[in-house]
Amino acid sequence: MAQQDWTTSITKTGAGELRVRGYDINSMIKGLSFAQTIYLILKGELPSEAEARMIEAMLVSSIDHGITPPSNLAARTVMSGGNSLNSSVAAGILCIGESHGGAIEQCARILQESVAAGRSAAEVVAWHKERKIRLPGFGHRIHERDPRTTTLLEVADACGFTGDHIRLAVGMMEELEKGSSRKLPLNVDGAIAAVISEMGFDWRMGKGFFIIARTPGLVAHVFEEWSTQKPMRKLGPLGGHYDGPEDRDLPQG
Amino acid sequence: MAQQDWTTSITKTGAGELRVRGYDINSMIKGLSFAQTIYLILKGELPSEAEARMIEAMLVSSIDHGITPPSNLAARTVMSGGNSLNSSVAAGILCIGESHGGAIEQCARILQESVAAGRSAAEVVAWHKERKIRLPGFGHRIHERDPRTTTLLEVADACGFTGDHIRLAVGMMEELEKGSSRKLPLNVDGAIAAVISEMGFDWRMGKGFFIIARTPGLVAHVFEEWSTQKPMRKLGPLGGHYDGPEDRDLPQG
Amino acid sequence: MAQQDWTTSITKTGAGELRVRGYDINSMIKGLSFAQTIYLILKGELPSEAEARMIEAMLVSSIDHGITPPSNLAARTVMSGGNSLNSSVAAGILCIGESHGGAIEQCARILQESVAAGRSAAEVVAWHKERKIRLPGFGHRIHERDPRTTTLLEVADACGFTGDHIRLAVGMMEELEKGSSRKLPLNVDGAIAAVISEMGFDWRMGKGFFIIARTPGLVAHVFEEWSTQKPMRKLGPLGGHYDGPEDRDLPQG
Amino acid sequence: MAQQDWTTSITKTGAGELRVRGYDINSMIKGLSFAQTIYLILKGELPSEAEARMIEAMLVSSIDHGITPPSNLAARTVMSGGNSLNSSVAAGILCIGESHGGAIEQCARILQESVAAGRSAAEVVAWHKERKIRLPGFGHRIHERDPRTTTLLEVADACGFTGDHIRLAVGMMEELEKGSSRKLPLNVDGAIAAVISEMGFDWRMGKGFFIIARTPGLVAHVFEEWSTQKPMRKLGPLGGHYDGPEDRDLPQG
Repeated sequence: MAQQDWTTSITKTGAGELRVRGYDINSMIKGLSFAQTIYLILKGELPSEAEARMIEAMLVSSIDHGITPPSNLAARTVMSGGNSLNSSVAAGILCIGESHGGAIEQCARILQESVAAGRSAAEVVAWHKERKIRLPGFGHRIHERDPRTTTLLEVADACGFTGDHIRLAVGMMEELEKGSSRKLPLNVDGAIAAVISEMGFDWRMGKGFFIIARTPGLVAHVFEEWSTQKPMRKLGPLGGHYDGPEDRDLPQG
Repeated sequence: MAQQDWTTSITKTGAGELRVRGYDINSMIKGLSFAQTIYLILKGELPSEAEARMIEAMLVSSIDHGITPPSNLAARTVMSGGNSLNSSVAAGILCIGESHGGAIEQCARILQESVAAGRSAAEVVAWHKERKIRLPGFGHRIHERDPRTTTLLEVADACGFTGDHIRLAVGMMEELEKGSSRKLPLNVDGAIAAVISEMGFDWRMGKGFFIIARTPGLVAHVFEEWSTQKPMRKLGPLGGHYDGPEDRDLPQG
Repeated sequence: MAQQDWTTSITKTGAGELRVRGYDINSMIKGLSFAQTIYLILKGELPSEAEARMIEAMLVSSIDHGITPPSNLAARTVMSGGNSLNSSVAAGILCIGESHGGAIEQCARILQESVAAGRSAAEVVAWHKERKIRLPGFGHRIHERDPRTTTLLEVADACGFTGDHIRLAVGMMEELEKGSSRKLPLNVDGAIAAVISEMGFDWRMGKGFFIIARTPGLVAHVFEEWSTQKPMRKLGPLGGHYDGPEDRDLPQG
Repeated sequence: MAQQDWTTSITKTGAGELRVRGYDINSMIKGLSFAQTIYLILKGELPSEAEARMIEAMLVSSIDHGITPPSNLAARTVMSGGNSLNSSVAAGILCIGESHGGAIEQCARILQESVAAGRSAAEVVAWHKERKIRLPGFGHRIHERDPRTTTLLEVADACGFTGDHIRLAVGMMEELEKGSSRKLPLNVDGAIAAVISEMGFDWRMGKGFFIIARTPGLVAHVFEEWSTQKPMRKLGPLGGHYDGPEDRDLPQG
């Protein structure tokens, strides 16, 4: 088999030089925020002000979910076996699979393909109901209404991102709840799926946003395990509780 | 063995509620940047404006290094075996070990312990030279002067973070290069080590910053592999080249 | 959500007691081979002599494939970043995906479903040809005839495992090569798929056999990297060569 | 930096050829057991009959430990997030760290260095007691006497492997328990450390034996999770119980 060149269009490196998507790293360090840089490296172009604002909001929304998600359990369990911070964080990311964060890409795919094909919310919901396929991005095992969804959609609206994909997602939620006693709200995965679709990201990038957002949370959990706990302790979701700072408000800007 | 409670002081969750270090997630989505949130979740408190600016700069500086780092090779190789985006990114993070990003925590430890003990740059360098121990955070396999170091230290200076730890790091570089023909510049790992030490972060958090910064780069590489390449191709650092956008300048703000 | 009990039917533990599938670990240590124990833990029952012989042959056949597979590249790359033996081996296993070892479970699924439905080799091949779907378990990127396939099938024959599944697999190879200039031999993945199907293993166990077989090979590669190479070296499939013992024969028993 | 050749002395590959440590894979499939092949690939030479017997016993002894070890929790948690079998097994292996299986290499190192330096059991124990360093390979969080240790040492004795390293390990256990009310038995990690040292394996290979032995157990747990449980369930060590076959005896050979 012939050797294939390993090419990349992301970052150019040379002695004393480093350019991401064409931009010099030194100008970037001085002129861009981390969220703007994340948009740039994933999309290939700089974000507008509204796009940067939207990315900030999405990433903040998913930074952590306390002791409930399996990714935090996996990460802390690996640290508890006496391993390095990077191995433990990697175990957390390994856990972010089809059933944990995966709804973002599954839902984004449905939204993107349905909008492209001109299907209505009623049609999409009916198609899935007939086949008894659960729609990804709706419902939550803990929250009846995910507090983050409304806020994210408000930010999207304020930023002017309420187009076909978000309208379809909201419409699907309304269809799903028609004549059903069970709440099946658009959850934070579904909201992010709608927003990134609105912004023109490929659905295959969906889990990537969740991973980027959650990594600082995983680092915080692994560091907490490392710096406060003994190895090989019995870890599990039961009996877990929060013992951090009291409820408080952000300072008024 | 008695069951130990699993407590955490990071995030509080309940039905319809999510608070990070005491702050409501909805206020955070509307009021904080991703970099501010990263600082909050790692440190437990909100950053000042200068601290937020410094974190943005550090995270931007390490977002990617093209096809040269082993973490990108590991991540793309795992995707090439026909695996998921999260597994591939996890393989990249697994690779961020003692010899790849690990210098941040090793160097931060030396700086923090030396400043605490009141040791001078000359003493620290002499101690390591006598024992023939290579000082972590100095030298680079590709760059003679790492372009990112100077810029990061300029930002640190502008933000008012040039205290004992940064002065010690710069002093050590000058000591190392005295009477040596070989360049042993403070590299970007060493600069980040000095800056986080200046900001009061535990040295064990060092690799965490690198992982958080590099994750979006890994996502970009894994997505590029997934969306443009066939599985099971021959991957390696040889023959690799950049075929992305031409050099360009950031728009003037 | 209600707590679900975590039950397992694999191993029972208590103070001073350890029983795998009902058998005491001390009797097992004295009375069973590792291959017999692998069969026991996966299948729930002890193997017959022929089944034990077959498992030994399958596991031996896949122990390593030198510097060509991506799993060895991923594992050695992670070690080269300065990581632990277990992290590096884990990276290798992460790489064993749909395109690398995954053909075992894909092919086993086709064989099991086709035998159950009474489909002939010609029907199965025609169905896939019409849909232009490549049949997993046939063809190899390096070998025109995989040397291991013939041997494994000979052992299967000697052990009395040549039933419907193996006959279907061989029949499909003959169909595939009819009127084709390209060789599409049953490869080692396909042979293992046929054999485990013959032995009554669930197709979802397919990749598990490959992982068990390959782990000692990964340990050997990671140890070689650790004990003979410097960190952060340039790794890749090019320029690789073998410098071990000369060709030699097993002693005559 | 100059390209370094990637050489290996493990396996030679070519079109239609595959040789491990010089031996043809086809002869190996027909003539060697999996345990013999594991010894060969790790050590570079074929085992004697006694060495093969010893390796079988060691690998069988560590195949699984039910729902108690963190590696099984990590592996099942990753599968529960909706991931692949290989990712889940990899997470289990990631967990096998300094505090979980790591005692094998730590203890083997102490035994090998102490035998080489001619130190007595009393000296080694005293040195560690003075520095308040816990000796790896002694004590167990569940078993007062690890049932597997005695059996492994009996097999070692029957195979003629009771030399300096095993005598030192047993001597250290006796020293440790002198005048102590707490049991600090040589555990299975310590027994394996002693046996591999006796067989001439490098201590850095220690965790490798544990990983090889435990991988089939991890596959069995991940498969059980996949085939019998729903995703995203609450996993933890509490409430876990065994519901497999009743106690039974191996058939008399």
